[in-house]
Amino acid sequence: MDRPAVDELTPPNRTLMGPGPSDVHPRVLRTQTTPLLGHLDPAFLELMDEIQDLLRYVYRTDNEWTFAIPGTGSAAMEAALANCVAPDETVLVPSNGYFGGRMAEMVRRLGGTPVKVEAPWGQPLDPEDVAEAFDSQEIDVVAFVHAETSTGTLQPDVPELTDIAHDEDALVIADTVTSLGGVEFRTDEWGVDVAYSASQKCLSAPPGMSPITVSERARERIEARESPSRSWYVDLSLLGEYWGEKRTYHHTAPISTTYALREALRMASEEGIEDRWERHERVAGALREGLEAMGLSLVSESWLPSLNAVYVPEGVEASAVTDGLLADHDIEVAGGLGDLAGDTLRIGCMGHSARPENVLSLLAALGDVLEGLNGDVEADAALAAARTSL
Amino acid sequence: MDRPAVDELTPPNRTLMGPGPSDVHPRVLRTQTTPLLGHLDPAFLELMDEIQDLLRYVYRTDNEWTFAIPGTGSAAMEAALANCVAPDETVLVPSNGYFGGRMAEMVRRLGGTPVKVEAPWGQPLDPEDVAEAFDSQEIDVVAFVHAETSTGTLQPDVPELTDIAHDEDALVIADTVTSLGGVEFRTDEWGVDVAYSASQKCLSAPPGMSPITVSERARERIEARESPSRSWYVDLSLLGEYWGEKRTYHHTAPISTTYALREALRMASEEGIEDRWERHERVAGALREGLEAMGLSLVSESWLPSLNAVYVPEGVEASAVTDGLLADHDIEVAGGLGDLAGDTLRIGCMGHSARPENVLSLLAALGDVLEGLNGDVEADAALAAARTSL
Repeated sequence: MDRPAVDELTPPNRTLMGPGPSDVHPRVLRTQTTPLLGHLDPAFLELMDEIQDLLRYVYRTDNEWTFAIPGTGSAAMEAALANCVAPDETVLVPSNGYFGGRMAEMVRRLGGTPVKVEAPWGQPLDPEDVAEAFDSQEIDVVAFVHAETSTGTLQPDVPELTDIAHDEDALVIADTVTSLGGVEFRTDEWGVDVAYSASQKCLSAPPGMSPITVSERARERIEARESPSRSWYVDLSLLGEYWGEKRTYHHTAPISTTYALREALRMASEEGIEDRWERHERVAGALREGLEAMGLSLVSESWLPSLNAVYVPEGVEASAVTDGLLADHDIEVAGGLGDLAGDTLRIGCMGHSARPENVLSLLAALGDVLEGLNGDVEADAALAAARTSL
Repeated sequence: MDRPAVDELTPPNRTLMGPGPSDVHPRVLRTQTTPLLGHLDPAFLELMDEIQDLLRYVYRTDNEWTFAIPGTGSAAMEAALANCVAPDETVLVPSNGYFGGRMAEMVRRLGGTPVKVEAPWGQPLDPEDVAEAFDSQEIDVVAFVHAETSTGTLQPDVPELTDIAHDEDALVIADTVTSLGGVEFRTDEWGVDVAYSASQKCLSAPPGMSPITVSERARERIEARESPSRSWYVDLSLLGEYWGEKRTYHHTAPISTTYALREALRMASEEGIEDRWERHERVAGALREGLEAMGLSLVSESWLPSLNAVYVPEGVEASAVTDGLLADHDIEVAGGLGDLAGDTLRIGCMGHSARPENVLSLLAALGDVLEGLNGDVEADAALAAARTSL
């Protein structure tokens, strides 16, 4: 309990090309030097209103309950499940990635019953399998992952999934942690009831606040529940009263993070949401061309621009690649999770990190590191392919 | 869903003398412009270790599980309760303020049974009442508020409370949200099992991460539980694996907030924890002298330096005072909560806000505002008394 000797903050300057956080634009970082407002200051409440408008814009929704949970993406996942799932209710969860497993674990703790829709890691859910699940049991909530960060898989056919669920009077929860602000997602048009996300992926704000939007259908069901959600902290009715007209004190908002999230959303709005989706597809497309020209193949059959999971060449250990990129090039990418650990790399292309110069420097560095590990790759072809594509 | 028109961030420059957040030192704000590290970057893990050492220093503890919850103070409250309280267990909660009520609400949602120890708002708990509660029922956990933010009440006699609880094999949870880093608190010496706090009060970091420390006794009980905590997000075993040697991924840490919390803790350590307690007592003591010389009386019988709740003069509405201070002087103080709403002001004196110049400008402004509202106060006497005391 003596005074610890802790030096000045001098971290290395990384380029973040992993599964998040992504690089934050200096304009966004700079807002965090702004002196704090109180969480009930009229000037702060105005900023909250602006964030709600900006979130509705990127979510493509008119939902009144559109705001940010005071925690990371997993807090938003817990908010979605803890409010939509009453004890003894049944929730369809996907088995095609790491985060479906996390959903199932949360549902169990909330007193619900998770039922898996089977699909291999790296493949999206088949709407037919979802429809079949309804034939054999009563299902109250369908949860799916729009952009699976563990495998780089995009879930297509969202309107088909929501139609199936709504025909059976089930709610639909979408995990858009790695898609919101970077990959096409249309909450209202696609009929999604609850979509949650994170700030530090395609929105490129620092982590710590997590967007969520809730349809009127879901809201009515939540407000009609006999018992309140098991979590007080992420109770959407209480959060809604703080973000809404009542302004009832619930928690002390993360003020600096709020400033930053607002600025990041402002930048998304300035760029235009559809232009932003297009930029991610174009820049990540060049990354993908480069990776494939290098000789690496994608894990997923349904490409997710914001997260490219690729197999490492035979005889190479993924951790040696991530370590080499970090130590010699100050670039962060991640290894795989679960069954994909050891064999795969996860390369993000999100938000402010989704820039041509990042793709080129990553491909050049990756080629160097793999060649240094005696991996059988075409490093020069990779750069040429990416340049052509950009 | 059109692009919202949102301007540059230009908030007013407030002086924060309410119940938190407190003013953040520029040195702390500045760290938040540092580019992000990934949450599993070895350089980031080192910062986490330093934060743990610094937190052990301010908590006066050797507890291994000493880290920060990725959320606000209420998330840390939920972490303490969700992990220590199994369904059907009984928790003694205090009735002498707003936050005891919040504890009771959380306990109910977690499937436990809250039992109140009665004490009027503004008075601390009497250890004899706690002892008596054990005579009439089995109690598994005793929760108390060391520094009640709604009434400005300090709970003395902490070692007496913990002795009573431990004699009956109950765990003790302390809410130190408004005391950690500003008011004497000795986790190990006083035998507290779980103490949680917030970053934005006496530590003067931005809100968004919340310290917690857990004794070996509590940790063993938590790890022996048959069912995991109802909240996955604040599961202390999972959080402990991320902060501990395993470094198992749990959530994406709020990186910028982590930088800031580390710097704020560094400043607390540079000042020295006991000197910091002494500064709060001295500066808040001058504030109290000034308020009393003005003719205002404290709500609480057990003075809490970091939060001074006072009655407004007769005929004055508290909200007119808080509005006047904010509009004409850019100073934030708060009105009362619950039964004290309308009649009281809550004036904080925490962390970087606990400076002589803040106390003098607050007293001068408060005198002006109260005189403007025809309150019967001695404005000049207030300043003289504070000056003498400083």
